[in-house]
Amino acid sequence: MSVLIVGSTALDSIKTPKAENPRLLGGSASHAAVAASFFSPVQLIGVVGEDFPKKYLDLYKKHKIDLTGLQILPGKTFHWSGEYELNMNNRRTLATELGVFETFNPTLPKSHQNAKFVLLANIAPALQHHVLDQTTNPKFVVADTMDLWLNIALEDLIKLIKRIDGFVLNDSEAHQLTKEDNVFTAIKKIHKMGPKYVIIKKGSHGSVLSSPKGIFICPAYPLHKVVDPTGAGDSFVGGMMGYLAAAKGSIDTNIRRAMIYGAVTASFCCEGFGLNQTTKTTRSNIESRVKELEQLTKF
Amino acid sequence: MSVLIVGSTALDSIKTPKAENPRLLGGSASHAAVAASFFSPVQLIGVVGEDFPKKYLDLYKKHKIDLTGLQILPGKTFHWSGEYELNMNNRRTLATELGVFETFNPTLPKSHQNAKFVLLANIAPALQHHVLDQTTNPKFVVADTMDLWLNIALEDLIKLIKRIDGFVLNDSEAHQLTKEDNVFTAIKKIHKMGPKYVIIKKGSHGSVLSSPKGIFICPAYPLHKVVDPTGAGDSFVGGMMGYLAAAKGSIDTNIRRAMIYGAVTASFCCEGFGLNQTTKTTRSNIESRVKELEQLTKF
Repeated sequence: MSVLIVGSTALDSIKTPKAENPRLLGGSASHAAVAASFFSPVQLIGVVGEDFPKKYLDLYKKHKIDLTGLQILPGKTFHWSGEYELNMNNRRTLATELGVFETFNPTLPKSHQNAKFVLLANIAPALQHHVLDQTTNPKFVVADTMDLWLNIALEDLIKLIKRIDGFVLNDSEAHQLTKEDNVFTAIKKIHKMGPKYVIIKKGSHGSVLSSPKGIFICPAYPLHKVVDPTGAGDSFVGGMMGYLAAAKGSIDTNIRRAMIYGAVTASFCCEGFGLNQTTKTTRSNIESRVKELEQLTKF
Repeated sequence: MSVLIVGSTALDSIKTPKAENPRLLGGSASHAAVAASFFSPVQLIGVVGEDFPKKYLDLYKKHKIDLTGLQILPGKTFHWSGEYELNMNNRRTLATELGVFETFNPTLPKSHQNAKFVLLANIAPALQHHVLDQTTNPKFVVADTMDLWLNIALEDLIKLIKRIDGFVLNDSEAHQLTKEDNVFTAIKKIHKMGPKYVIIKKGSHGSVLSSPKGIFICPAYPLHKVVDPTGAGDSFVGGMMGYLAAAKGSIDTNIRRAMIYGAVTASFCCEGFGLNQTTKTTRSNIESRVKELEQLTKF
């Protein structure tokens, strides 16, 4: 089955203590879509400007991502530039140029409206609502978010959380949303806001799922070197949704393994700038790391 | 088989945002010994002053801890007082009164010199050396440490690391010791300093083992409420060593499961002040949480 993914489609200029990479393909939807494409067909909803390099359109196509829902509008592509500190855990935004994103009004092509697996990747909650409004009968809807929306669009976000099956956020965002330091207490509060599935991302410490079948502690794949963590969270949730859309059986049966596949896909993302390493990997590389994770967690 | 444990035996005055508890039984050896006692007989090496409450000696005895190696000297018991911030991850020392610890010269009773499992719990590296010098033929020696010794006794500590089988430290100490931000790169560097087994503690994020059989990612038991994390790391390594000393088969066969038992014992420690909750638990409570962890990590 396909995964419908809406989110940002951007050009990212990323600076780390060791290198500088201008105008890479980035954005939550790009990372999530490429990650999901290893497992399922993907329908991408996004917007880019006329400056968007053809090579990036070709890259989407190489991953067989359906671009019917990608608008190309007069103006500039959304551009984010940021800088990482030495330990890669802290980053600061240097500039954000919204470009064509300022007036983005995502419209679902008729062929996409019946999507069963819907990933509302990180983007303004109003746009997440707007895409969800256009779906007719989704089976499993997951939304991701970021601190920005907790700061400037909290009301929209809280309304969105009521409408979705799964909510994905990182530990500091969970703390910001619930005022709870303890991750498991925060999860309880988030369940009360709506979603049956709550996933807390903890970066290199892995992630935690709370679902009707209880808690799952999901490890991160151990990396000796992190080149650029931008998009790792998007790759995680994209990989997870791609795996779920392809898997037979219930969400509850598959979601733990889906998170493992998401974590492994995210590990490749961290090993290169932007999507450089993710796009070089293969399903068989992913399977090897999943097997490794099975060994690394056995007791 | 018995575990020989040397470390601090102290009175801890612990303040959290919610409560204040003066002169609780504490110290690395106390926490580690009680934790190990759920699995194996324990021989404790330590020193207390004449002010040491009889009820705490009784508590050791209740856990069948061999006190032949516990010196009771004229003077005051080592006293630590500290305060936790709201999120329980940051603490600051308010006062340290060494008391009888100032002149502590641990002497191994003859009956203890042949110990096979030796835990050099957190204490000055010179004292860890001194105890190790008196053992005749240990099978598995593990040392724990803290940032203080990295700051004031680094040379002693580096010499100690060469002599031991397993080294346990937390992630910030690993960073301090190796100047490496990445935990897995830090581990590689620590192996080069001597120990075959390196364990990095990451608090509520679990721990990581690197051994001749590769990496093991060990989860923490999920807690909804942390009352007082003092001694959790000592309980972890104590529980691990107790389990190892009791288990049949090689260290490599047993160490992953031993860490799980250590993590679970540490979870009880966090649920009460000082040793309050650890001493109330039972082997059967521990087994239940181990079973739970098996479920929580399955995929």
